[in-house]
Amino acid sequence: VTYGLGILLRDGLILASDSRSNAGVDQVVRVKKMTIYEQPGARVMFLLAAGNLATTQSVTEYLEQSFDTGTLQDLYAAATLFDAVQIIGDLLRGQIARDGPYLGAGEGDASFLFGGQIAGSEHRLFLVYPAGNFIEASERCPYLQIGETKYGKPILDRTIDPDLSLEEATKVALLSFDATMRSNLSVGPPIDLVRYRAGSLTADQVHEFDSDNAYLRALSKAYSEGLAELVQRMPVIDTPPLG
Amino acid sequence: VTYGLGILLRDGLILASDSRSNAGVDQVVRVKKMTIYEQPGARVMFLLAAGNLATTQSVTEYLEQSFDTGTLQDLYAAATLFDAVQIIGDLLRGQIARDGPYLGAGEGDASFLFGGQIAGSEHRLFLVYPAGNFIEASERCPYLQIGETKYGKPILDRTIDPDLSLEEATKVALLSFDATMRSNLSVGPPIDLVRYRAGSLTADQVHEFDSDNAYLRALSKAYSEGLAELVQRMPVIDTPPLG
Repeated sequence: VTYGLGILLRDGLILASDSRSNAGVDQVVRVKKMTIYEQPGARVMFLLAAGNLATTQSVTEYLEQSFDTGTLQDLYAAATLFDAVQIIGDLLRGQIARDGPYLGAGEGDASFLFGGQIAGSEHRLFLVYPAGNFIEASERCPYLQIGETKYGKPILDRTIDPDLSLEEATKVALLSFDATMRSNLSVGPPIDLVRYRAGSLTADQVHEFDSDNAYLRALSKAYSEGLAELVQRMPVIDTPPLG
Repeated sequence: VTYGLGILLRDGLILASDSRSNAGVDQVVRVKKMTIYEQPGARVMFLLAAGNLATTQSVTEYLEQSFDTGTLQDLYAAATLFDAVQIIGDLLRGQIARDGPYLGAGEGDASFLFGGQIAGSEHRLFLVYPAGNFIEASERCPYLQIGETKYGKPILDRTIDPDLSLEEATKVALLSFDATMRSNLSVGPPIDLVRYRAGSLTADQVHEFDSDNAYLRALSKAYSEGLAELVQRMPVIDTPPLG
């Protein structure tokens, strides 16, 4: 199972993903679910995959084969991020259609988070559904999730704000992963996390957090202790029982 | 959608449920999902339902029709809670089998939390699956959930301990509901919550929390503010980026 998270901030973007994949009980492997497409100074794009690994690997392979071909599938030739995300949606549709007859209903499904910036335009963030259509993050909906999304959602709903700094939002993103990994053992480290500062047009803040990463462990421990204290500080029930 | 939670403490039990049910977009209604069976001084049992409302209402109806009949389906005649939960599992199997041919696969499914105490025995807590089989809570697995379980799980994983007092565990239970209601609008108040003190053999601490309940609102607000402060206090990332 995968958990993927994208956060749209005024200051930039955060994208994060775990690296665990399982194709049956005996085949739990670590795979890179985040791909970075970079032309420093011109464009930076981040692609994050969840779902059937055969589907998502085929889509990223087709994307790579089309680089600098100048064709309609060339991410580097797309004039806008909207055009670029449409390429991804189309490739996803094609792959699901090709594999579909040989798989159970929905078995080949996959989804993507796609974000980045092209020189002269704003930074943007999208979620591509298995149907190949997509939605965009906005100030009112500043984060998007794919895969195992529920465990990590409550902390986002309580704390994410598009005005958070990249540093603050990084904490929240990692805590959202920590919550997910505690509650679902099939989501696991390492966590790949990229912080993109709007306007920088370069992917120079890529992090990988292993399970023994000192910062991740310290953050998780401090948060758990702080949360237990917080609950202790909460008022106890003062409403009289009904009967 | 329903969220139901049961917590097994050394001091007793907590069972809580929301009250929203939807059978299609236009039929969102409030229903009681918690039933209390009480013979003060002799036995107290709590039943909490999730899933297909037709299924769960039929099961509770059959239970009621069998009260004091002395038959094998009589919850008040069951010698142990194990025998009692088996009655519920059997009735659930029967109802799903009866309705199954007229419904889509899994459509009639339901699950229950069942807990209580019979004089002379320990207090216990069970989860009955749609298959009619069941598991029991224990010191190592002190809480059980039914329905929309994921949003409310992280706070339980971080804070529930069988040694918590009923008052402390009530806070955690309500915060687990608060997290769920924030992230899934189809889980909604009022929340029915019962606290059972082991050995009391009476259901005298039954609460109903409406959306405008002063305590629930104060708790939710204080927790959200406290959580935002907690995240702010967390250390910022000190790991250098990979590139």
